[in-house]
Amino acid sequence: MNVTTTIPAGYGFQNFANDGCARAGVLHTAHGKLETPAFMTVGTAGTVKAMTADAVRSTGCQCVRGNTYHLMLRPGADRIAALGGLHSFMDWPGPILTDSGGFQVMSLAALRKIDRDGVTFQSHIDGSHHRLTPAICMDLQYKFDSTITMALDECTAFPAAHDAAEASMEISMRWADLSKQSFRPRPGYALFGIVQGSIYKDLRHRSVNALRDIGFDGYAVGGLAVGEGQAAMLETLDATVPLLPEEAPRYLMGVGTPDDILSAVERGIDMFDCVIPTRAGRTARAYTTSGVHNLRNARFAGDPAPLDPGCGCPACTRHSRAYRHQLFRAGEMLGPMLLTWHNISYYQTLMRGIRASIQAGEFASHAAGLRADWKRQETSR
Amino acid sequence: MNVTTTIPAGYGFQNFANDGCARAGVLHTAHGKLETPAFMTVGTAGTVKAMTADAVRSTGCQCVRGNTYHLMLRPGADRIAALGGLHSFMDWPGPILTDSGGFQVMSLAALRKIDRDGVTFQSHIDGSHHRLTPAICMDLQYKFDSTITMALDECTAFPAAHDAAEASMEISMRWADLSKQSFRPRPGYALFGIVQGSIYKDLRHRSVNALRDIGFDGYAVGGLAVGEGQAAMLETLDATVPLLPEEAPRYLMGVGTPDDILSAVERGIDMFDCVIPTRAGRTARAYTTSGVHNLRNARFAGDPAPLDPGCGCPACTRHSRAYRHQLFRAGEMLGPMLLTWHNISYYQTLMRGIRASIQAGEFASHAAGLRADWKRQETSR
Repeated sequence: MNVTTTIPAGYGFQNFANDGCARAGVLHTAHGKLETPAFMTVGTAGTVKAMTADAVRSTGCQCVRGNTYHLMLRPGADRIAALGGLHSFMDWPGPILTDSGGFQVMSLAALRKIDRDGVTFQSHIDGSHHRLTPAICMDLQYKFDSTITMALDECTAFPAAHDAAEASMEISMRWADLSKQSFRPRPGYALFGIVQGSIYKDLRHRSVNALRDIGFDGYAVGGLAVGEGQAAMLETLDATVPLLPEEAPRYLMGVGTPDDILSAVERGIDMFDCVIPTRAGRTARAYTTSGVHNLRNARFAGDPAPLDPGCGCPACTRHSRAYRHQLFRAGEMLGPMLLTWHNISYYQTLMRGIRASIQAGEFASHAAGLRADWKRQETSR
Repeated sequence: MNVTTTIPAGYGFQNFANDGCARAGVLHTAHGKLETPAFMTVGTAGTVKAMTADAVRSTGCQCVRGNTYHLMLRPGADRIAALGGLHSFMDWPGPILTDSGGFQVMSLAALRKIDRDGVTFQSHIDGSHHRLTPAICMDLQYKFDSTITMALDECTAFPAAHDAAEASMEISMRWADLSKQSFRPRPGYALFGIVQGSIYKDLRHRSVNALRDIGFDGYAVGGLAVGEGQAAMLETLDATVPLLPEEAPRYLMGVGTPDDILSAVERGIDMFDCVIPTRAGRTARAYTTSGVHNLRNARFAGDPAPLDPGCGCPACTRHSRAYRHQLFRAGEMLGPMLLTWHNISYYQTLMRGIRASIQAGEFASHAAGLRADWKRQETSR
């Protein structure tokens, strides 16, 4: 089914094709467009690890996801603001989404203490004391000049009893409200709320209602891909996504494998981010159309074939698997550089294929084809 | 004075301008030209560390210097040959010079034992046993498909008594002769001999004569920049370079700082290689027209200026010093990547300036200008 909407002047989401629950669209922002379903490459500390900004652009990636926790500690929001914002700082004029920092405070910071109004913690870098509240969180992302600001939330740990998940979700909803109040709107910029509630459908339902009451420019599903497993994640999406407003983009945070992404697109998710392609690129794990390979494996030592014959990334068009194997064996920096480039290209190619299939009304058969390939690769190992 | 020669069909050195002892020319090879005076970027193990081949090319670098010791151990000469040679392996269709491996055997390998016919050693990687003789050394470089093969030599340690330096030089001259006998000539390929003799002028003289008697396509001065200091190095060049044949290129191995290079060009050297720009790029040391800076220095933390305003490398045109500071502080791979790129660009720009000044007959004033800048930078620190 084709959905026609007018292209907004500043920020706006144009959902122009639906195929089942899957949606193809464009998110318009002050810093350019983001075609959806989209995979945002992770650029934690103002750089996509092992990549120049030009290299990231060359893969077709349109949006980078920065990390408020890392950036607030080093180099600091005031410094980034003084240097003209994150776009100029990291040579990424396109859209940038920053997370709220809440997730890293919980996973990285020392001596963190959460209260009703925010969280106090010590930097994992130098032990310095910091505080994050919804107002501070909005101010930080304003100073970064983030295209898409995420509301402060507490990412509920897994597993969590219903009581604990409820209390945590309620704090996140309170912070979502306070985030909205502190957010300073600018044309073409957006604020996203984050649905919490662990794997409990009733809590997810209440969380969505709370966020819709506040009103956001986009809705993220948080607290998933934290150990619950794919089946529980998809069940939670089944219970959550249909409740979200159709006219706003939907972002599944921190997800995931190609199969996770495909399954979430199938359920109506528009945006993703994950460290998988970049982290795998630094550890010799290659995502290819013939499966996931470890380039350190001795069987690649003399292999003259390109890593992924269909891929257009510079390493696939110019280097053999044997060369990439040599780079990782010899501990050369070019190994992670070329493999990160390839893995991001693989993810962007995956997303382009998914978008095209939705636009053509052929998403179901496209997804079935991808899954058949993945299954064949697994059994042939 | 302009010197006119005909452009050779395969390999040949065309020395088309002299200015004092400084020479500007072109080395023609089977893999393209190398304009001299030239700085060859070091690509030890089949990669210029932290750089794609495209990035190296973009700096104007025309020749990469590979490392026989590293390549023979990993991935091995037969493997490189089976994969089509080093040019194809590392995506560098241009000229490649490989050293003989002798220097690294002495500095890196375990349990090395030198005899009249060669050297036996254990790999520093896995302890495996290897032997390097002139014949083996020529065969390895043939398999790499090196454009310029270096004769096997023993790099005399410094300091060395006259006796020891003489014995070492004589072994190198014997190996030079055997290298020439084993070298398999191909059109557009070259074999260079290496002058040894430590800082002793009589030994250097005898070494040059021995090499001229054998006859090589180019002459390298080895055994310098090993701790003797710049003054002793230049005195040795003064006593050596005038003895070398005018019609062949002259290569000063493992040199050096910009000032070393300028002083050696002044004495008639045509080719250089050194790890300085690439190694410095990984340790935050920036070579710039305003001096050598350590980017970790706190004074760069908020500096919005480009690292080197006149430089055309992508990081200088797009990023601030503050950004580069942040990358090194945060331990991001992009720090070494961008700074290596810049440092190689700096060296290539330096060489372009030197070449142009020789061609214009203005080398002396150009050199004086560079030295005045460097002196001012040192005193202003």
